[in-house]
Amino acid sequence: MAMNEVGHLDPVFISLMNENQELLRYAWQTDNSFVIPVSGTGSAAMEATLANCVEPGDVVLIGVNGYFGERLCDMASRYHADVRRMEKPWGEIFTIEEIGSALERHRPAILGLIHAETATGALQPLEGVGKLCREFDCLLLLDTVTSLGGVPVLLDKWHVDMAYSGSQKCLSCPPGIAPLTLGKRALEKLEARKTPVPNWYLDMTLVGKYWGKERTYHHTAPVNMNYALREALRLVAEEGLESRWERHRENAELLWDGLADLGIECHVTKEYRLPSLTTAVVPEGVESKAVASWLLRNYNIEIAAGLGQLAGKVWRIGLMGFNSRRENVTLLLAAMEKALAATGK
Amino acid sequence: MAMNEVGHLDPVFISLMNENQELLRYAWQTDNSFVIPVSGTGSAAMEATLANCVEPGDVVLIGVNGYFGERLCDMASRYHADVRRMEKPWGEIFTIEEIGSALERHRPAILGLIHAETATGALQPLEGVGKLCREFDCLLLLDTVTSLGGVPVLLDKWHVDMAYSGSQKCLSCPPGIAPLTLGKRALEKLEARKTPVPNWYLDMTLVGKYWGKERTYHHTAPVNMNYALREALRLVAEEGLESRWERHRENAELLWDGLADLGIECHVTKEYRLPSLTTAVVPEGVESKAVASWLLRNYNIEIAAGLGQLAGKVWRIGLMGFNSRRENVTLLLAAMEKALAATGK
Repeated sequence: MAMNEVGHLDPVFISLMNENQELLRYAWQTDNSFVIPVSGTGSAAMEATLANCVEPGDVVLIGVNGYFGERLCDMASRYHADVRRMEKPWGEIFTIEEIGSALERHRPAILGLIHAETATGALQPLEGVGKLCREFDCLLLLDTVTSLGGVPVLLDKWHVDMAYSGSQKCLSCPPGIAPLTLGKRALEKLEARKTPVPNWYLDMTLVGKYWGKERTYHHTAPVNMNYALREALRLVAEEGLESRWERHRENAELLWDGLADLGIECHVTKEYRLPSLTTAVVPEGVESKAVASWLLRNYNIEIAAGLGQLAGKVWRIGLMGFNSRRENVTLLLAAMEKALAATGK
Repeated sequence: MAMNEVGHLDPVFISLMNENQELLRYAWQTDNSFVIPVSGTGSAAMEATLANCVEPGDVVLIGVNGYFGERLCDMASRYHADVRRMEKPWGEIFTIEEIGSALERHRPAILGLIHAETATGALQPLEGVGKLCREFDCLLLLDTVTSLGGVPVLLDKWHVDMAYSGSQKCLSCPPGIAPLTLGKRALEKLEARKTPVPNWYLDMTLVGKYWGKERTYHHTAPVNMNYALREALRLVAEEGLESRWERHRENAELLWDGLADLGIECHVTKEYRLPSLTTAVVPEGVESKAVASWLLRNYNIEIAAGLGQLAGKVWRIGLMGFNSRRENVTLLLAAMEKALAATGK
């Protein structure tokens, strides 16, 4: 990131753009031609999916079992979608049967699911979902913000039509750039629009020409953020996805076992627990904020507070990318024990 | 930029957010409370002004005398504005009389002007424009992408209601973050909206709470880009705006005189010529692209091609921020002489 930037239409930068696209295809396990980093944060890439593929009146079905499903509903409504909610308590997932009957009932143009819910620590199983969506002629939109580079994400195998991610989760790149991909069916829906994309910055008919063969100027890409993303993705490729997934899984298990030893439960049932983000239940009588502040002050370790339905009830412990390390887990568990003692009444 | 990032809700980052806001107020010469860096590039901040302050059917009058006025028209139409164009050939400016009679005729809710046109090298005079807008109960929207930090921009004195900029022009920060400010009258229009802002990522009713006292999570700010912006703005403050404006002016004059010595004219009449970006007319018989490529290949100097109406007719020579230096001007002029000789027939 500290390297001097070149002009965003410099031949050197253009070859870096190509590299980032190719490395993202690997990370996502997709052959989609439309794979780009959006010049904004994860929420911008999230909005890009809906801004481009929703036309007024489209039925958009969203799985709402956490914070980010709510956000998808909010965004979709701004593009005048007919938003339908499929709901579950925070921390639970949707079964294939639940998804099937919701598709049957709502017949949506788009189904939006959060693969890895950063607010709840739940990992949504995707097996069979994409095929079901095709049977119902529905596009599958997947949030992979906290899964990409940390747990298996197999876009093509799962028949995902649109996906986005953030840079600062399991890719371990600073925030400020956000992967986005649109598959063939999503691009067809975009091309068939009757109205222009009602968002200029995120209009992929224009941005696609900047990242495509034409290289037509649209906006100035964040050059150094693209350097950073390239390095982050290079490290993903160097480690290899399978090793990376295994590392995240092993360190998460270590954390979960250690929390159990401290008498701290996990909010999510083990089968659907997300390795990259654990929601640990705050024990009775413990002040969640005091513990988190103590850890930050004394160990420079940051664990996050619960959000929404889980505010005050859980801590959110991230083990993402570079940060998913045995040393970090062991240190956190030891520091956590001290924090509980120090902040206890 | 290469510093480790902290969490975007970390107390340390929050004090940096405050610093960036204060430094931006200085750079823009405004006391507006709503001054933030948008988590995207200049075009995102540009769109933010319209996305927030245009309601369907609003008459929006745009000064179109270059590339970026066209862009404002495109963006405004996506928010269902009733777009009216006030036109001039590329490289010319609008006189106060022309602006007055256009306001009289169109009675717009918003007048959009490009202060420094990067495509044409013209600097739009602002004296009296803001007062006129208030007489017509119209908001003044100003693009200061290529002026902020390079030539006088006096938002409060000029009664500008909305402004935006880029980081990578005269502020000499890498691209990827973009200053935006909304004055009191613009905020009143935003608060009085009858419909929600039709853009989630750029919804300043939400983003304002993230940057305001509430610190309510909206999206994850690009932490390192904020570090970079702080350093860039700190350097602006250290040099002092007046010295910085003078430096840009002096080096531009040096360039203009040197070009004249080479028999190269400037496209814009001297009175309205922009110090930070010069459009130099490609002499008869010279291939503009060959000269630019030669300079890049032999001297690692990048000068840009003409855009739109000026494609093939001018070179665009930037002298912005750190880059506005006597050495650079002298070197470019000497290299240009060689380039003309080397590429001549």
